[in-house]
Amino acid sequence: MHFSVSQLKTYCRRVMEAHGVDADCAETVADMLLDAELTGVATHGVSRLPIYMERVDKGLVARRSCVTVTRESPSAVAIDAGNSLGAVGARFAMELCVRKARQTGCCFASVKNSNHFGAAAYYTRMAAREGMIGFCCTNLTAKIAPYGAAEPFMGTDPISVAAPSCGDPIVLDMTPSVVALGKLILAQKLGKDIPLGWALDKDGKPTTDPAAGRAGSLIPIGGAKGSGLALMVEVLSGVLSGAGTATHLHDLYAFDAPQGVGHFLGAIDVSHFLDAETFRTGVYAMASEVKALKKAEGVEEILLPGERAAKSAAEKTAAGVDVPDAVCAELAALGEAYGLKLTGD
Amino acid sequence: MHFSVSQLKTYCRRVMEAHGVDADCAETVADMLLDAELTGVATHGVSRLPIYMERVDKGLVARRSCVTVTRESPSAVAIDAGNSLGAVGARFAMELCVRKARQTGCCFASVKNSNHFGAAAYYTRMAAREGMIGFCCTNLTAKIAPYGAAEPFMGTDPISVAAPSCGDPIVLDMTPSVVALGKLILAQKLGKDIPLGWALDKDGKPTTDPAAGRAGSLIPIGGAKGSGLALMVEVLSGVLSGAGTATHLHDLYAFDAPQGVGHFLGAIDVSHFLDAETFRTGVYAMASEVKALKKAEGVEEILLPGERAAKSAAEKTAAGVDVPDAVCAELAALGEAYGLKLTGD
Repeated sequence: MHFSVSQLKTYCRRVMEAHGVDADCAETVADMLLDAELTGVATHGVSRLPIYMERVDKGLVARRSCVTVTRESPSAVAIDAGNSLGAVGARFAMELCVRKARQTGCCFASVKNSNHFGAAAYYTRMAAREGMIGFCCTNLTAKIAPYGAAEPFMGTDPISVAAPSCGDPIVLDMTPSVVALGKLILAQKLGKDIPLGWALDKDGKPTTDPAAGRAGSLIPIGGAKGSGLALMVEVLSGVLSGAGTATHLHDLYAFDAPQGVGHFLGAIDVSHFLDAETFRTGVYAMASEVKALKKAEGVEEILLPGERAAKSAAEKTAAGVDVPDAVCAELAALGEAYGLKLTGD
Repeated sequence: MHFSVSQLKTYCRRVMEAHGVDADCAETVADMLLDAELTGVATHGVSRLPIYMERVDKGLVARRSCVTVTRESPSAVAIDAGNSLGAVGARFAMELCVRKARQTGCCFASVKNSNHFGAAAYYTRMAAREGMIGFCCTNLTAKIAPYGAAEPFMGTDPISVAAPSCGDPIVLDMTPSVVALGKLILAQKLGKDIPLGWALDKDGKPTTDPAAGRAGSLIPIGGAKGSGLALMVEVLSGVLSGAGTATHLHDLYAFDAPQGVGHFLGAIDVSHFLDAETFRTGVYAMASEVKALKKAEGVEEILLPGERAAKSAAEKTAAGVDVPDAVCAELAALGEAYGLKLTGD
């Protein structure tokens, strides 16, 4: 089905409100989901609304904002999200960091007792729009094996950094594993092998069997390097926030307990270091130089981090969003009991 | 030759002073070089003193600290290192960040007009010793090809993050390339092929020939992921500082101009987020859990980032440092004209 942005966003908001989510929280989550759709990250878009609502309906996630600031300094904030929807605590944190960074030069926030917050780039782009470098990471249930280990310890913890430019911002958003778990799930569905180097089986041996990999662990990029990066995300999101590290968290798709996820976000106001215009021009010049480099064999265009997302957003904001029928059926089911009808173009 | 730490450090300091470097700068650089020796990073240890002194002698690096603060906010500092020895500007920056982070929660500093500063972990461990999370990165001349490109654009830019613990701090220090350039140089010396996946030749094709790789570019870890990380280091160290990105810098081993390198460093005071003791205990618990994981086949011990360095430092602080004869010959030559004699145990 095809939707205009406002059609789809309004439907998501109304569904959440029908399920008892308060208006502000529903607006925040709908905005985050649509941002993922626009930027081409459909895995973190409206397809996640059903699981979010299932958790809300089961009482595993708060229906309103229960966010509180537990410690506050000029450039540091500790936040307890009080089991609010993930986007609610994370957006609150980034907005506060941006305000405080404007005064002091930078500010970072830890968030505990939170939930799945969608795509990390949503939060770093908020900072970039304000002329700041944004940083965001979160932990998730354990899926990646540390270098040398045969079992998972770190989550597929995303790391996002965004920098403003005269053109589109540069937005990195990456997990420290070679591939996301979704690639194993897809290969298994298609009955295909996976390349060596993606996953280990439950005994810690490299495997080409996607089912064995799902029962085992994902391999970090660059061996000890990606492993170390993921451990540092656990330190920032899990230890500094007080949320706990990945093995102590609860899965989005399990209904045993609140997820208890932790985030770490921050903003660095470039205008405290040099003239903001000089910075944006410098990032743009760097991007232009990269795009003009000689291309590797078979490469049509060198893409910067976030470039594809920005192009996608520009196109889809104008042309609207396509949502697969299977996802539409789930979305429609969420509204039916409340008399809400999913209507596209 | 074998040296006690103080023997070797004193010799390095005296050599620098003999070459006209002022006492404070000589002490800083000697401390940084010995730290690299102790932590087992001999590539960044005393073997670099000859090139540092050659640059000083040629007037390409300042003999005293020319560091100035050009902008200062409560949590942000812009520094012009004035072509001081790399360690001088970077250490000044981290010390200032630590002092300011104690007040505000965190502080970051950009540094421009700087030089090769040694191992990034030297600076992040300074923060960890003060109970803070340390961050440090720098850019260097272009060696890594962006994902999709056939020529180098980013330096082998190290990223270091350190976190304090009840035990040894966790200290990540990594370059975003699959291997350091040194591995290609070594393979070439030994007449060996390199594995596919380390380097591209000058046409951007994967190569097993180390000479072709040196003439081409290094491959980032995780494809677009490591490429994006390295680009973000260029944004932080090169654009935010005003130093310029990698292709605009000058090489440590070329004598055409000052290097003009940029750094980005910072400290996050954990006690502004939660009780410092809770944080240190949490990091220690995480480390203990990682070490107790089931090991992958053939692995004797799971090592945390910085663990080998900490063990090495504890051993060598007591037992002293071995320096290869070829390096000793170069060090001895540096002192001879000034009547300084290199003496070990």
